[in-house]
Amino acid sequence: MTERGAEHDGTGRVDLSFTVDEAQRTVRVPPGVTVFDAASWNGIAIDSTCGGHGTCHKCKVRVEGSTPITRHDVKTFTREQLDAGWRLACLVNATRDLAVDVPPLTTRPKAATVGVGRQVILRPAIQKRYVELDEATLADQRTDLARLLEAIDDLEPVPDLHVLRRLPTVLRRADFKVTAVVVDEALVDVEPGDTTRTAYGIAFDLGTTTVVATLLDVSTGTPVAVASMLNRQQPFGGDVITRISATMLDPDALGRLRTAACETLAVLAEQVCTEGGVDPAHVYEVALAGNATMTALALGIDPEPLGVAPFVMSTAQPPDLLAADLGLALHPRARVTLFPALGAYVGGDIVAGMLATGMDRDKRTRLFIDVGTNCEIVVSDGDRILSTAAPAGPAFEGGAIRCGMRAADGAVEVVKLGEGVELGVIGDVEPKGLCGSGLVDAVAELVKVGLLDASGRYVADDVAKEIAPSLADRLTYLGQERVFVLHRPTPDAEPEDCVVLSQRDVRELQFAKAAISTGWTLLLEELGLEHRDVQQVLLAGSFGSYLSAASAVRIGLVPKLPVLRIVAAGNVAGEGAKMALLSVRERAGARALLEEVTYVELSDRADFNDLFVDQLSFGG
Amino acid sequence: MTERGAEHDGTGRVDLSFTVDEAQRTVRVPPGVTVFDAASWNGIAIDSTCGGHGTCHKCKVRVEGSTPITRHDVKTFTREQLDAGWRLACLVNATRDLAVDVPPLTTRPKAATVGVGRQVILRPAIQKRYVELDEATLADQRTDLARLLEAIDDLEPVPDLHVLRRLPTVLRRADFKVTAVVVDEALVDVEPGDTTRTAYGIAFDLGTTTVVATLLDVSTGTPVAVASMLNRQQPFGGDVITRISATMLDPDALGRLRTAACETLAVLAEQVCTEGGVDPAHVYEVALAGNATMTALALGIDPEPLGVAPFVMSTAQPPDLLAADLGLALHPRARVTLFPALGAYVGGDIVAGMLATGMDRDKRTRLFIDVGTNCEIVVSDGDRILSTAAPAGPAFEGGAIRCGMRAADGAVEVVKLGEGVELGVIGDVEPKGLCGSGLVDAVAELVKVGLLDASGRYVADDVAKEIAPSLADRLTYLGQERVFVLHRPTPDAEPEDCVVLSQRDVRELQFAKAAISTGWTLLLEELGLEHRDVQQVLLAGSFGSYLSAASAVRIGLVPKLPVLRIVAAGNVAGEGAKMALLSVRERAGARALLEEVTYVELSDRADFNDLFVDQLSFGG
Repeated sequence: MTERGAEHDGTGRVDLSFTVDEAQRTVRVPPGVTVFDAASWNGIAIDSTCGGHGTCHKCKVRVEGSTPITRHDVKTFTREQLDAGWRLACLVNATRDLAVDVPPLTTRPKAATVGVGRQVILRPAIQKRYVELDEATLADQRTDLARLLEAIDDLEPVPDLHVLRRLPTVLRRADFKVTAVVVDEALVDVEPGDTTRTAYGIAFDLGTTTVVATLLDVSTGTPVAVASMLNRQQPFGGDVITRISATMLDPDALGRLRTAACETLAVLAEQVCTEGGVDPAHVYEVALAGNATMTALALGIDPEPLGVAPFVMSTAQPPDLLAADLGLALHPRARVTLFPALGAYVGGDIVAGMLATGMDRDKRTRLFIDVGTNCEIVVSDGDRILSTAAPAGPAFEGGAIRCGMRAADGAVEVVKLGEGVELGVIGDVEPKGLCGSGLVDAVAELVKVGLLDASGRYVADDVAKEIAPSLADRLTYLGQERVFVLHRPTPDAEPEDCVVLSQRDVRELQFAKAAISTGWTLLLEELGLEHRDVQQVLLAGSFGSYLSAASAVRIGLVPKLPVLRIVAAGNVAGEGAKMALLSVRERAGARALLEEVTYVELSDRADFNDLFVDQLSFGG
Repeated sequence: MTERGAEHDGTGRVDLSFTVDEAQRTVRVPPGVTVFDAASWNGIAIDSTCGGHGTCHKCKVRVEGSTPITRHDVKTFTREQLDAGWRLACLVNATRDLAVDVPPLTTRPKAATVGVGRQVILRPAIQKRYVELDEATLADQRTDLARLLEAIDDLEPVPDLHVLRRLPTVLRRADFKVTAVVVDEALVDVEPGDTTRTAYGIAFDLGTTTVVATLLDVSTGTPVAVASMLNRQQPFGGDVITRISATMLDPDALGRLRTAACETLAVLAEQVCTEGGVDPAHVYEVALAGNATMTALALGIDPEPLGVAPFVMSTAQPPDLLAADLGLALHPRARVTLFPALGAYVGGDIVAGMLATGMDRDKRTRLFIDVGTNCEIVVSDGDRILSTAAPAGPAFEGGAIRCGMRAADGAVEVVKLGEGVELGVIGDVEPKGLCGSGLVDAVAELVKVGLLDASGRYVADDVAKEIAPSLADRLTYLGQERVFVLHRPTPDAEPEDCVVLSQRDVRELQFAKAAISTGWTLLLEELGLEHRDVQQVLLAGSFGSYLSAASAVRIGLVPKLPVLRIVAAGNVAGEGAKMALLSVRERAGARALLEEVTYVELSDRADFNDLFVDQLSFGG
């Protein structure tokens, strides 16, 4: 905090006090952000059509005290207004605490609901403007480009060679009645006639396992079609480490992994366009959220430094790309926006997830967990945000589990123990194995009935008979190892033909959950908080959606909270990608997270191992 | 002019009063340029290594009065210094008259002489920085890119995908000792080890007839190799109009003209690299100056609107390109900087020429003429600059002239008449024809001796015998037409086997020179000036270099000035391209010319035809 009126030294936050309709509201933002951004990120609407590029001259506010005057201000305001503090909000940098008057809106902004209950004011990077131009004369020899851009009063896009090659021909064939297609600051096309109604983008969630594409009408915020498929990189390995290893063993593997990722995206893009009845040439932008390894592989960047200590990314903010660079047959100049990453194991997918869940806006103390082979954890106390990654191992994805399988038909996903065993099975078919949520349920229930003790060991047969007589016969041996039989295909089936939970499986889950709970415990400690201070837990990803909140609490995967405070947040990475397509302000918010979120590396912490051992227990 | 302290309304000029070493100097610049640019353009040196991007924090000046404080100022100066008016010169926009104190230089800038006696302070867009980086550790997991960029303290370049793909590999193979290659604001490569000594650019003068390439060592400003050849577009026609017509008649011609231009550039690029012993991969930038048609054809932009009234360009400022877009096999991310154009017939070549001749810096009243099929004319009175184009026709290039030929071996380039005829012939061989400078000389000399009258008609035989008895027998007939025999291959050769100047040839020259002198006369009138106010005439292009100043004055092609004030400026377009490679400030100066120079269209002026008829005469 700085004294109002003093310049800020560039660290910490500044306070902006907005007055809207006589109500006052103060927000804290990192120094240097514009007043316009600070307002948008906090849901305070200010008129604008250019999205903060200083070109539409509509975001008028009155700022208290002396504030620099830009050339756009000089064009917009009278000398008296300038003296009275009127400025364009998108050009005022909040380098100190400021008081800002916001006039009533002249237009009502359109909004869409995306993410976890987030209202997003529509301001897509894709903008279309239909114009009817005067033809050139000897008295008006303005260039084709100047004629076009001067007719678009609120944007100042930059053309590339592709547009300039088309411009003279399209203008003259269309009798100078054309639609300019702008993406961010680029003029990507000039189309004959009025095409303002057709403006589409595709949001990709590029997962290690599954890739999801959503085709969005960005002018309304409406999803038009959704499709998903397995990542075609699967044959190279199920998780990021095996895929990185593949590139280290074979010099051609990087190229092939890149091709596999691009093919996956291309198949999905074609599928959503076909399903939505949309010409791929009308898709002008793609937003893509993926972890750091998936992003590097899709871009053809060597992922080896991500896979070995000290786990270094080539860049946190991926470069500007064309969709064609990813092999996507959309508009030839369609652009790609990628999410920035916080670390080698807290990637763009998590940043997208933070955006979708509003981790940086909510004043509550919240814990965000994306459970997977690599588990990403974010904690916010409403002011500071910390993140880390915990190596949970493959247990939650069915890996290294005797009867483990992915969440597909035949996977046990719900387990309830009472007089007998009650199973929920995906696809309502004969149980074939155990997926992550079934594993967590099984262990939680076995702990609850007492067949597993606090240390995670199966109790002796005599103890079992005493505390759970109707289940005790399911506790048996498979070779030398103790197992609990969850499902017998036939009454006299041998244990090796049954769906069982082995002692080693329990150990795998213990290690996985200890890695995760050690992670969030250390982050809470960093913030001076205890478990009970957490007001909400967000479980992200498809696994999070299926996990029983009660079981997660019982095994200690999440803090001991009332289950209603544990929220399955769903595919937040995909939701974040949709938000980025619908709002350049939200996109800027994602970039701002790079500054706002502190990445905490756990692997070199002295207290990690001690705490990890404590967290192995199911007791308490 | 505005009152000091008042904001400027965006038109006219502002006065900046610089104090350097206790000496004071006031310069006038368009409002909105930075103090740093205003100083550089006027030869006032201010410390800087980043070239005005606000990143090196070295261009410290003290500005009188209240000036906005940027975040870079806050990082650079103490509160007391800010209060005392210290600012970074590259971030202060001169929106009003300002007094600026410039401290003594801490480093002596390197300079090179290019253009027409211009001293250019070396600040190429190509910048190399050798860095030795710390390797990453768990305690320092900065990304590869952040590690690199933080080691380069004065530049903040943006990487593209190409560099990010190489970065992890190159850093690790080179033990984190690498050279960053920056062009303008782009990080174009990371090279192993220290390669700071190898930094090259190629300046192209893309002429309609001849294309010239100069390979420059941009770190020293030294030309390494020069090569020239005929433009391979020649088979499509000798001038811009015939080439534009070719594209209108054949839909494939644009593509073929583009290929021909690119091939010409590629052949020359290879030639200068071979001759200079330079690896083409060490050429990181290309500067190209060409007229509007040559530029459009090289870029593959339909030139038709340039060729028909109202003569409209697609854009005045061509887009950013890669050399690869022009088919040049240089560094794969080598960039191209193109000159902006003022009009369809005052193109990038003329803007480059204005830069090379300092048309916007000199306080004298100067007339710049680039003589060719299309003749470009620029007049400056030291404050306002006007330009126009005059359709001179092909006479100066030997076209439409009976014995006309290009300036090649056998062309008569000098003619003197006395007792006999004295000829200067290119290549010292038997005369074969007459090139442009020989044509002007011949007409001027014939006017001088009186064989041509003021109206441009050959005198009658009896008059000829009286006033020039030793020459009179050369005045004869070829068919029905009067001709003057300049060279007889054998004593009894028939006129059709001789090099002659026909009555029609004289008419062609009359029309050409009238078009040109009408042009500059009208521009001078616009500025309220007369012929005698012109202090210097610059004749640009190879034709200008060969033209006899005395003959040009005699036929009225240029104002009647002492011949020493008529300067053959040479290949100023090529010189301008070299300046653009050596100095980003000069390049910005070229862009500023778009605002500073007013294009005057002659073809719709009511007084054009009357004046044209007056100018046909050789009299006076």
